[in-house]
Amino acid sequence: MDDASLEGLEAERALYGPFTQAVRDLVDTAIRTQAGPEEVRRAQAEVEAITARLREEGLTGPYGVRFRQDGFSRAWGNAVVGLRNAVAPPLVVETGERGVHATFHLGAAYEGPPGSVHGGVSALVLDQMLGQAAGAGGKPGMTATLTVTYKQRTPLGDLSASAWIDRSEGHKTWARGELVGPDGVCVEAEGLFILPRWARERLAQSDEPAPRFFE
Amino acid sequence: MDDASLEGLEAERALYGPFTQAVRDLVDTAIRTQAGPEEVRRAQAEVEAITARLREEGLTGPYGVRFRQDGFSRAWGNAVVGLRNAVAPPLVVETGERGVHATFHLGAAYEGPPGSVHGGVSALVLDQMLGQAAGAGGKPGMTATLTVTYKQRTPLGDLSASAWIDRSEGHKTWARGELVGPDGVCVEAEGLFILPRWARERLAQSDEPAPRFFE
Repeated sequence: MDDASLEGLEAERALYGPFTQAVRDLVDTAIRTQAGPEEVRRAQAEVEAITARLREEGLTGPYGVRFRQDGFSRAWGNAVVGLRNAVAPPLVVETGERGVHATFHLGAAYEGPPGSVHGGVSALVLDQMLGQAAGAGGKPGMTATLTVTYKQRTPLGDLSASAWIDRSEGHKTWARGELVGPDGVCVEAEGLFILPRWARERLAQSDEPAPRFFE
Repeated sequence: MDDASLEGLEAERALYGPFTQAVRDLVDTAIRTQAGPEEVRRAQAEVEAITARLREEGLTGPYGVRFRQDGFSRAWGNAVVGLRNAVAPPLVVETGERGVHATFHLGAAYEGPPGSVHGGVSALVLDQMLGQAAGAGGKPGMTATLTVTYKQRTPLGDLSASAWIDRSEGHKTWARGELVGPDGVCVEAEGLFILPRWARERLAQSDEPAPRFFE
């Protein structure tokens, strides 16, 4: 359980958000720099020194997901939406009447075919969106199957994604979604999400609200 | 086209490989550090300074894929296998008689459910593996559809993946693959890969060998 106060949470967000963005910018630059060997070796030594200092106090395992009493959870290590994860673009997912929506930018770090978003990155983004659509509709679950259909090339740059619940039966929820580029829908996905037994048992035993999503 | 000499290529590999690994270690540490606010702010300022220096000379766009006359290509910006991409674990994919295989480690940066690999990250890895299996079998293509089935939770840690061609017809290839954890197969995937028209036309007009993969 996450027992941070709301003030403490905001202070952490204000600290780690910009820091992680700085790391994302370094990831992008590391791909694209044409600086000379001496400059790159100097940068490597400096990055290693920063990492060593930050590691002096740290978690021994991954970040995990911190569930709050108010039903919100903090998935700051998540590979798609994690505030503290430089692998994540990160997506900021908004919940509306019809489902969930996000606008985001995918740069050089998400490349597959030249100038294009990696097909697997589109699957990664849509898996998260579909899972959050299921959770936002009160039907959280883990992915059981995911089918992704590529309609056209997805260019790197500014993109958006939407997802919604198609139908649900008991602890099974089918969700659908799409990734949209400047020329329309590029990728479609459908997935089956199932609330795992351990989560069903835990929810049955407590009066905690269901978490919004598991991944 | 990539006109680097083999010696030049090895020198670049020796320079950028360890540098990018240092950036990966920083990404991991940024998620898990519990250093105080002053230390984090100091790290942010230093990372921003390194990025600014490295950006003075750099590509204006993404890395792309550099095709060599000898048929090999350099996808160093690729989100799964890219030597210069800190988002990539990176996978080192080996080609055998039956298809392709890779062993790799997924740490905190690839988390979805607590302690587990993000379902979308499994899809990302398998999309790349299936695409490379198609290419290694002489049938390169871009992903048209990908279906991923989750058999059990995939724990973060040491994993392996394999992929192979199931069948092919003309410029369409169906590939299959699996992601394996300490307790066996965690995720299965099947995908349809199609050689795009522009690539078919380009290959028909030249005597270049077919590239091994497109993403």
